[in-house]
Amino acid sequence: MKAERLFSNKTFESSPSDPTGPRFRFEDIFPCVDGGRYAVKRIAGETVDVWADIFRDGHDVLGAALLWRRQDASDWQREDMAFVDNDRWHGHFTPPEPGFYIFEIEAWTDQYGTWRKEFLAKQKAGQDVALEAREGLDLLRQLMPAEDGPRAIVEAAVRKFTETDDAAVLLDEWLATAMRQSGARPDLNRSMPVPLVADRERARAGAWYEMVPRSQSTVPGQHGTFQDCIARIPEIAALGFDVLYLTPIHPVGRTNRKGKNNAVKSAPDDVGSFYAVGNEHGGHDAIEPALGTLDDFRALVAACHQHGMEVALDIAVQCSPDHPWLKQHPHWFKRRPDGTIKYAENPPKKYEDIVNPDFSCDDSIGLWIALRDVLLFWIKQGVRIFRIDNPHTKPFPFWEWTIREVQTRDPGVIFLAEAFTRPKVMKALAKLGFTQSYTYFTWRTSKAELQEYLSELTDYPEREYYRPNFFVTTPDILPVQLQTGETWLFKARAALAATLSSNYGIYNGFELIEYEPLPGREEYLHSEKYEIRTRDWNKPGNIKDYLQRINMIRRDNPALLQTANLNFLQTNDANVIGFIKQSVDGTNAVAVAIALAKEPREFWLHFGDAQIGPPDQRRPVRELENLVTGERHLLEWNGLRVRIDPNADPAILFRCHV
Amino acid sequence: MKAERLFSNKTFESSPSDPTGPRFRFEDIFPCVDGGRYAVKRIAGETVDVWADIFRDGHDVLGAALLWRRQDASDWQREDMAFVDNDRWHGHFTPPEPGFYIFEIEAWTDQYGTWRKEFLAKQKAGQDVALEAREGLDLLRQLMPAEDGPRAIVEAAVRKFTETDDAAVLLDEWLATAMRQSGARPDLNRSMPVPLVADRERARAGAWYEMVPRSQSTVPGQHGTFQDCIARIPEIAALGFDVLYLTPIHPVGRTNRKGKNNAVKSAPDDVGSFYAVGNEHGGHDAIEPALGTLDDFRALVAACHQHGMEVALDIAVQCSPDHPWLKQHPHWFKRRPDGTIKYAENPPKKYEDIVNPDFSCDDSIGLWIALRDVLLFWIKQGVRIFRIDNPHTKPFPFWEWTIREVQTRDPGVIFLAEAFTRPKVMKALAKLGFTQSYTYFTWRTSKAELQEYLSELTDYPEREYYRPNFFVTTPDILPVQLQTGETWLFKARAALAATLSSNYGIYNGFELIEYEPLPGREEYLHSEKYEIRTRDWNKPGNIKDYLQRINMIRRDNPALLQTANLNFLQTNDANVIGFIKQSVDGTNAVAVAIALAKEPREFWLHFGDAQIGPPDQRRPVRELENLVTGERHLLEWNGLRVRIDPNADPAILFRCHV
Repeated sequence: MKAERLFSNKTFESSPSDPTGPRFRFEDIFPCVDGGRYAVKRIAGETVDVWADIFRDGHDVLGAALLWRRQDASDWQREDMAFVDNDRWHGHFTPPEPGFYIFEIEAWTDQYGTWRKEFLAKQKAGQDVALEAREGLDLLRQLMPAEDGPRAIVEAAVRKFTETDDAAVLLDEWLATAMRQSGARPDLNRSMPVPLVADRERARAGAWYEMVPRSQSTVPGQHGTFQDCIARIPEIAALGFDVLYLTPIHPVGRTNRKGKNNAVKSAPDDVGSFYAVGNEHGGHDAIEPALGTLDDFRALVAACHQHGMEVALDIAVQCSPDHPWLKQHPHWFKRRPDGTIKYAENPPKKYEDIVNPDFSCDDSIGLWIALRDVLLFWIKQGVRIFRIDNPHTKPFPFWEWTIREVQTRDPGVIFLAEAFTRPKVMKALAKLGFTQSYTYFTWRTSKAELQEYLSELTDYPEREYYRPNFFVTTPDILPVQLQTGETWLFKARAALAATLSSNYGIYNGFELIEYEPLPGREEYLHSEKYEIRTRDWNKPGNIKDYLQRINMIRRDNPALLQTANLNFLQTNDANVIGFIKQSVDGTNAVAVAIALAKEPREFWLHFGDAQIGPPDQRRPVRELENLVTGERHLLEWNGLRVRIDPNADPAILFRCHV
Repeated sequence: MKAERLFSNKTFESSPSDPTGPRFRFEDIFPCVDGGRYAVKRIAGETVDVWADIFRDGHDVLGAALLWRRQDASDWQREDMAFVDNDRWHGHFTPPEPGFYIFEIEAWTDQYGTWRKEFLAKQKAGQDVALEAREGLDLLRQLMPAEDGPRAIVEAAVRKFTETDDAAVLLDEWLATAMRQSGARPDLNRSMPVPLVADRERARAGAWYEMVPRSQSTVPGQHGTFQDCIARIPEIAALGFDVLYLTPIHPVGRTNRKGKNNAVKSAPDDVGSFYAVGNEHGGHDAIEPALGTLDDFRALVAACHQHGMEVALDIAVQCSPDHPWLKQHPHWFKRRPDGTIKYAENPPKKYEDIVNPDFSCDDSIGLWIALRDVLLFWIKQGVRIFRIDNPHTKPFPFWEWTIREVQTRDPGVIFLAEAFTRPKVMKALAKLGFTQSYTYFTWRTSKAELQEYLSELTDYPEREYYRPNFFVTTPDILPVQLQTGETWLFKARAALAATLSSNYGIYNGFELIEYEPLPGREEYLHSEKYEIRTRDWNKPGNIKDYLQRINMIRRDNPALLQTANLNFLQTNDANVIGFIKQSVDGTNAVAVAIALAKEPREFWLHFGDAQIGPPDQRRPVRELENLVTGERHLLEWNGLRVRIDPNADPAILFRCHV
């Protein structure tokens, strides 16, 4: 009744507050993506630092706590928050395992703390505080803690003051602690909830090796099998790769099958594009018979695990005209006025071997569920990483739902978004749930471009939700820069990818310096997308040793297993990029310089105001240890004169010491 | 039924989307304060530019519109939005009158536009497009506009194509326009609502004159009256002030009345602090009898209007112990354990002449309503500007509710927050609804301090909700810098306040160079808060002419009647601050240089890359016109050599010409 007469005008949607409304403000909560609409990304087992402006009216003493829980848990965990400065508070928590979490902030008026502060100020000024002491007594009675421990202390203080009238009793440190720990929290307010997803460690860092399974046979021209893939695992594991990422393994369509080099007509022995998914042997939950059986696939997954690697599958939400869904669910596909199926296209380009399911069809729910179930099927076979092809051409709500559906069942499943599209679309996909994302790294080549792009990715708020995975090449992209086939440049690109980003990948053949393009295009000649290629994986001139060394240095140096810890260093050479990274605990720091031009060069690597070490004892870098030769160099004038001969090695990596 | 089986895990609060969920993203909507929690501030009759990132999956053509309405209107107004670049769209609207508004953004798939784009691409590539034309025909039939005009055009096109089979019919510009104007908007999505408050012009700019009514008598020692105030209005209006702001006019308490210079004991003839509101003559809705009657007050309001000014009232939510509310609503006030009333305090400081109502009392609703009704009472007497004393010591929800309550009835009412407290608290009050805010200007004296502080206030997002009002002094604050009483410095501070900020104010006596402090304090000796002061308003050495000139220049130059349009200019003198401001329409631009030290000086005023003129025809400044002398100077090397003798005039103002 009473509250109602407050609101004289009911036509406003944003209802004004009421006398029982929130007395506290919680502003600028960090971390937080788009005001809490999307989840912040973190790694399970790692500390999440939380900051917020917390204040109320007046000059009372405040208390604040950080509350957090798994989203499906009913109980909140509590952590103290501490005042820092200028109404800013800090707290932290550690999500113990992968999953969806929520955190909120609680604030309340610390009435006892306020009374104590004011009492001490008056006492110090020599004022009569007898009445204030009685007010303190009343306050303790009123705020009597419900919990046994604090309650005993407060009851004792109340009793003792009643007997002695000695105000010191009410100021006792034990009492103050008991009152702080009490559950009595006047004016208690809660902030909005902030969602957070904790991923497993592989989401933070990994070296990916992209393999085309049908090209893994040792017999020229013969269709490779999962057994052939298994045979290559020891070699790839020894190179230090963490993820074996397979291009699509499903039956390849026959209708309008593409020929070599994307020819519209195929020859009878052409294998077609593995992105034309499905034929009479099945669709997205089937295996191309030429590769082997489901048992063979499971053997491949197991072999990977034995070598400390895991399999990533490429999922392309598109069908060949022979995909079983066209018969089972004809209403999922658009027909043209003449009754023919509508092929995929990006006018004037046409993809006659592919039809796209229509997300606007009447049974979109059925389509969503079928696609989710494809992922669940492969999870059952042991796959826990999916690289999603072209997610930006499917509705955003579909991805948000699908990823949530899968990660609810297994929060360890990793999704990599293969979206090479407009920057805001790529960021939106990351916000909606993709664990990692492809990037523009492939086309960022100059020092200025790399610094600008990496600064964007590692800045707030991008770094809270967008985890880059730097690919040097892909089956679709042979960047112009690499088309000259210079070994030093392949090394430089691998070193850049592997040290700038904690997640990076190469596509098979890169280690063999494959560089022949379709003339005038950024695509490979004789692309494996349309034909089988058989290679000598130990071909002279390969850079496998080089990749192995980089991967091993990464594993030995946790500083390199993060991305947002990047800080650029000054170099007096426009063709040398320099940077430093440090592990969270400050026990490992690595400085890197990489040449972007092939001439040998000498330059100064300047450390500026970079400091390293555990957070409470940061100090300037004093000495550098070459991670390849072991040589040690003392800094002079806070820098080092460095020589790089890119033809030997375009990158130089140092462990930093104080 | 079907939708339900989508959601396998119901324990998540942030429910994932569904197939009918939003296909579009609306991101980074500008302007917007704290994600739409608080209203953006604008002026009625002025254009509001709206920007947003708008995108969906895929490569379809989009349509977008800006929708807006008064919050209490049921119908939305529509404005087109135009694509700018990189998924960013722009639109604008003009709130016609003061009030609360909402805007939202609508986006949809332009299916006809998409078809047309793809058709043209295929046609250009020489492909057979007969089937595409039939698809276009089907699309037109499916999207047939409901509105008569567009419908006629589309029907004609359908008929003509059916007869002729000529695809050109489907590509006609008239048809394209008709389809754009059609209400058929597939995949229609709406953004979140963004609240906006449109204030009247006085909220944007005004020169305030703060007057202590009881000091306005011409007879020494005699209590001034409203009639005395009325007698001064022609003079103050002639000086160019817009707002006559009166310190509290209510009956002054008797209990523990303060003596001169804040003495704890008062003499029998002491008038007490006007911030101790209330005695037997009434409280916040009463008038101190020595000032006159309510009719006299209304006469003062009317006299102000006749001279183009208006009255601002000072409202302090605090009571003398003699305020009627203590008897009428004893439960609004805290009692101590001995039954005595609890005086206001800021330990160890005590304010024995004041008691604060307790916003945590059981009848806080009653208290809120009574305080709101005080404001409504004065609005009935013609007051439409309130300066609120110490709002930061009352609960935030109270202000949000009160301001909303008042402005719902009269959206032209202006609230100025007199909060000199922590920066985040001051900003929170502005977000919650205060039209204007006091600032730290009073203590920002060096060039670096002024530039840093003004940059903060005029930057995004502060400029969207925080309207500064720069006071050079107040009855509470005589800043150290002014305690030497140097005339050039009083002029400089007035010039800084009046040109940096479009809202500024002086406190009476400033024009007479009053500067004597309580020793060691930033307060006035013989402060009018505790005694009557009678002055010769034409005292030799006054700077009234100077203030008049500045106020007239402000009125003549709309560039100076805004604050966030500030751009600093380089000067090669650490004691000269330079800046340029331009009106929204670009027809008026003013450059200002103000000396911050008293020695005569010559310096370069550099215009850097500053450009002026209407938005579509900006050009570099070419010529300056001295706004006092009328002299004209052509820029050389994009700058001007300027001489200032602060003892004559510390400020120089130029109108800029191209």
